[in-house]
Amino acid sequence: MKIGFLGLGQMGHGMAVNLIKAGHEVVLYNRTSGRAAGLAAPVAATPGAAAAGRDVVFTMLANDLALEAVTFGTDGILAHLPKGAIHVCSSTISVTMAEALETAHKQAGQHFVSAPVFGRPDAAAAAKLFIAAAGAEVDIARLQPLFEAIGQRVFVVSSTPSRANLVKLSGNFLIASVIESLGEALALVAKGGVDEKAYLELLTSTLFNAPVYKTYGQMLVERKFEPAGFAAPLGQKDIRLVLAAAEALNVPLPLASLLRDRFLTLLANGGQTLDWSAIGSLAARDSGQLA
Amino acid sequence: MKIGFLGLGQMGHGMAVNLIKAGHEVVLYNRTSGRAAGLAAPVAATPGAAAAGRDVVFTMLANDLALEAVTFGTDGILAHLPKGAIHVCSSTISVTMAEALETAHKQAGQHFVSAPVFGRPDAAAAAKLFIAAAGAEVDIARLQPLFEAIGQRVFVVSSTPSRANLVKLSGNFLIASVIESLGEALALVAKGGVDEKAYLELLTSTLFNAPVYKTYGQMLVERKFEPAGFAAPLGQKDIRLVLAAAEALNVPLPLASLLRDRFLTLLANGGQTLDWSAIGSLAARDSGQLA
Amino acid sequence: MKIGFLGLGQMGHGMAVNLIKAGHEVVLYNRTSGRAAGLAAPVAATPGAAAAGRDVVFTMLANDLALEAVTFGTDGILAHLPKGAIHVCSSTISVTMAEALETAHKQAGQHFVSAPVFGRPDAAAAAKLFIAAAGAEVDIARLQPLFEAIGQRVFVVSSTPSRANLVKLSGNFLIASVIESLGEALALVAKGGVDEKAYLELLTSTLFNAPVYKTYGQMLVERKFEPAGFAAPLGQKDIRLVLAAAEALNVPLPLASLLRDRFLTLLANGGQTLDWSAIGSLAARDSGQLA
Amino acid sequence: MKIGFLGLGQMGHGMAVNLIKAGHEVVLYNRTSGRAAGLAAPVAATPGAAAAGRDVVFTMLANDLALEAVTFGTDGILAHLPKGAIHVCSSTISVTMAEALETAHKQAGQHFVSAPVFGRPDAAAAAKLFIAAAGAEVDIARLQPLFEAIGQRVFVVSSTPSRANLVKLSGNFLIASVIESLGEALALVAKGGVDEKAYLELLTSTLFNAPVYKTYGQMLVERKFEPAGFAAPLGQKDIRLVLAAAEALNVPLPLASLLRDRFLTLLANGGQTLDWSAIGSLAARDSGQLA
Repeated sequence: MKIGFLGLGQMGHGMAVNLIKAGHEVVLYNRTSGRAAGLAAPVAATPGAAAAGRDVVFTMLANDLALEAVTFGTDGILAHLPKGAIHVCSSTISVTMAEALETAHKQAGQHFVSAPVFGRPDAAAAAKLFIAAAGAEVDIARLQPLFEAIGQRVFVVSSTPSRANLVKLSGNFLIASVIESLGEALALVAKGGVDEKAYLELLTSTLFNAPVYKTYGQMLVERKFEPAGFAAPLGQKDIRLVLAAAEALNVPLPLASLLRDRFLTLLANGGQTLDWSAIGSLAARDSGQLA
Repeated sequence: MKIGFLGLGQMGHGMAVNLIKAGHEVVLYNRTSGRAAGLAAPVAATPGAAAAGRDVVFTMLANDLALEAVTFGTDGILAHLPKGAIHVCSSTISVTMAEALETAHKQAGQHFVSAPVFGRPDAAAAAKLFIAAAGAEVDIARLQPLFEAIGQRVFVVSSTPSRANLVKLSGNFLIASVIESLGEALALVAKGGVDEKAYLELLTSTLFNAPVYKTYGQMLVERKFEPAGFAAPLGQKDIRLVLAAAEALNVPLPLASLLRDRFLTLLANGGQTLDWSAIGSLAARDSGQLA
Repeated sequence: MKIGFLGLGQMGHGMAVNLIKAGHEVVLYNRTSGRAAGLAAPVAATPGAAAAGRDVVFTMLANDLALEAVTFGTDGILAHLPKGAIHVCSSTISVTMAEALETAHKQAGQHFVSAPVFGRPDAAAAAKLFIAAAGAEVDIARLQPLFEAIGQRVFVVSSTPSRANLVKLSGNFLIASVIESLGEALALVAKGGVDEKAYLELLTSTLFNAPVYKTYGQMLVERKFEPAGFAAPLGQKDIRLVLAAAEALNVPLPLASLLRDRFLTLLANGGQTLDWSAIGSLAARDSGQLA
Repeated sequence: MKIGFLGLGQMGHGMAVNLIKAGHEVVLYNRTSGRAAGLAAPVAATPGAAAAGRDVVFTMLANDLALEAVTFGTDGILAHLPKGAIHVCSSTISVTMAEALETAHKQAGQHFVSAPVFGRPDAAAAAKLFIAAAGAEVDIARLQPLFEAIGQRVFVVSSTPSRANLVKLSGNFLIASVIESLGEALALVAKGGVDEKAYLELLTSTLFNAPVYKTYGQMLVERKFEPAGFAAPLGQKDIRLVLAAAEALNVPLPLASLLRDRFLTLLANGGQTLDWSAIGSLAARDSGQLA
């Protein structure tokens, strides 16, 4: 298929490589062009040029604003994507933005599918992502070979695209909840004299033998939050989007509120460049265990 | 070894059976004697009688009060257990109580080991428990064959017995945190139109493929909280003990505080006989999704 | 002075009446014109017409959106207010919106002053409002006679207009905090068998003898939340704006987060038309005291 | 009347002086005898000696433990107070302890009245306390002249003594809520560039013109938490007792939970000797405003 791929950050780079490997005809676009170096695909000068004449255009960008910038305007995707073609958005964006994109593409005779992914950069490179896709059934069927090229499994969430974004956001909320709960448990047992490493080994060998406990537990025990795999401001953004989606639906989420306050505390105290898991160190700080 | 086993509830019954099977000479005691029916071991008339002349006495009881009742007094363990013998406490009790028991047994020339277990009744029956043991190294070494008879793995936590209780309590806090976070996530996506079962399948096939997410996620999705595997009042008790231990150490735990309020809400609204996972339905209730 | 007054709701009506009484030449505007009936002042057909040729234009509107609607566009204030004239905004709006208005008016050669007020409709009618004003010193000096016509005291907060909005929002946060704390205290003592009326009498005769405790305490004790003096959705909006302002400044506010969740719970459970003080009944609900 | 007065701390000293001034025949007792120096009343050697032959015995002690120490045992009040005499407890104690005392005195043929007071040491010295009394109607009638000697007004709460303790505890919860809300509001507006003193002046001149806002607002603005008028560990104790009473009644109190965590954070970070109002500085700390 003829594909445009916009957004060559840590995640997008791996996804684009895998689409190229799978034999698709890919045109790339990135705001700063250097990121495309070494990829066996031409680079377009504008978002619109990467969308023109394509069957499918992927976007993998940092946030709502970046996505708006490539989608709207005279040089944007919307103005250049052929009628009947599909915009697949894999970015973690707001539910509101997904709804706005669905409407805009429909008015332009184009299709829109939300397909956010679970997995960190190494999973993107290894084509091991999990994909939560939502959109028209026929569109998702057409996209199946592309999803297979970048991920290990697709979950079809709904025919309404924005629901995939809700699922993605809620997933990040669940991960942040794991971080907070581990942070509190570690603060408690450590102050009580238990060895943190042995404690984590116990947890992750028994009831909590999921990757998310191992990954984040280790970061917390080692207090190693740099370099950031997923930076604190991005985590804060995602919790903000969870709370915004919940507010629109009148769903109170006290644990998400707690996470919000943790992220703001972290950012207010020098955590801008740390991994988002550093919120898990605040329980230790509050209990007087960090200088 | 000559073993006394006190407390033949859902958990203790399985553990006692496995100790008998392993060839140890076991004397049983339960407050209500019917629970010992069918077990190939004699039943003592008092706690003290089950402790007299034994190498090791196990207690697997509901709470601090029940443990106090069998330990102290003229008919209690303390008055009858031989010098040098070991009291192994597998109950989920307070840190304070564990400290008191350690002191009392030391004064009586006896030994005390805390060995709380992770696992539900089926794991107890199948000798698949995880054991978090804390106490003197020599005592734990002596107990090794007994632990092997009842569990699949022993984690030696500390030489201070009460630290195993802290670990156990923190583990229950982590499980309750999973329940709360799942409850909030489900309330959000369900009100947003996502199918809850498909959502849970996505979670537990990807980042959250741990038993605890599967078990409790299913209960929440099916809103099936009866019969209670672990009743709400017991969950409330454990969060209370977590908070008490944290207070003694000056460790603020905002997520545990949230859980406390959830349990009280549940108990105040007819949840006395429900499984503790029913706290995970309160987010849906607060968002107006339950009649 | 020649004054335009936009927004004749419960609050604005009283303020406009008092400006007219004070002898100023007032032109009125309201989205639905009936509200101006009986006022001794001409009614303009558009926001711009109410601003044209005026020395000062007041806006007293429900929220950011309503204010945007009268300010921007070809028929708006910005396009018609004379250079050097002042836009005085008394609405409870976001900090961000106040910043945007300051910039827009400056670019148009006009002045902008934020002057939100404290007090309910009866205080507006009686010219007893408290005014928190922020803007250029000379502008506030020119406005002094107008402020005296509508209020009992002016507090000059800052030369930066948006800071008055921050003060106003924080004030509403403090009131909502009083409601929540009273709601929890009443739930506790009532379930413990204490008469709620006698309890409130004790509080408001001693340490808590401020109008805010009397007003809201009585509403809570009588469970009388209709008709709404200040409706729940407006309260929710203000807490949202508090949290948004706090997020922009990286200030975690756990009590405001709690209030947010209370408002969402209220709105999700049929509270749309109730007074915002109804959040104070949720503690009683959660403790099982309301059917 | 013949009165025994036990507990000559900052509060008790003033109360005892006023009872002596009013012409009653008072016998004093304090754990450390120096506190009675200069008072025109004899000092008893034991609590029991201060109770023997008295019509009424007052206790004004720091906590449950101190009260237990003077009440029970062979030298205690219970063993020496005449039948028909009244024990008036003005200490801030737990609901559970008040219930236990009521039962114990009834069994001894004695009477028990809970009469905790609102006011700080200066109010005690000036006989300006507010008294929340609960107990048998006839007992309270007999005590009326004594209450008039120490306070400015008596509120009869209930015929069940422990309810007065619940009222007192809830009052301290309300004060701590004021501190927390002011702390958050100040952290927000200060980081937003508003002058804290001017802001407090605005609040306390308008809606929040109650002593509690002035007193604690000033301490927060001046960050002056030493010397402690009411020390942080005592505040933490009272919130603990509020939560314990609420737990016994199944009343979730999320704001009290927040306060609990604030107090633990304060105590874990060097706040042992500070005034309890120092919890109001934690919002500023978390927002990065304190070094």
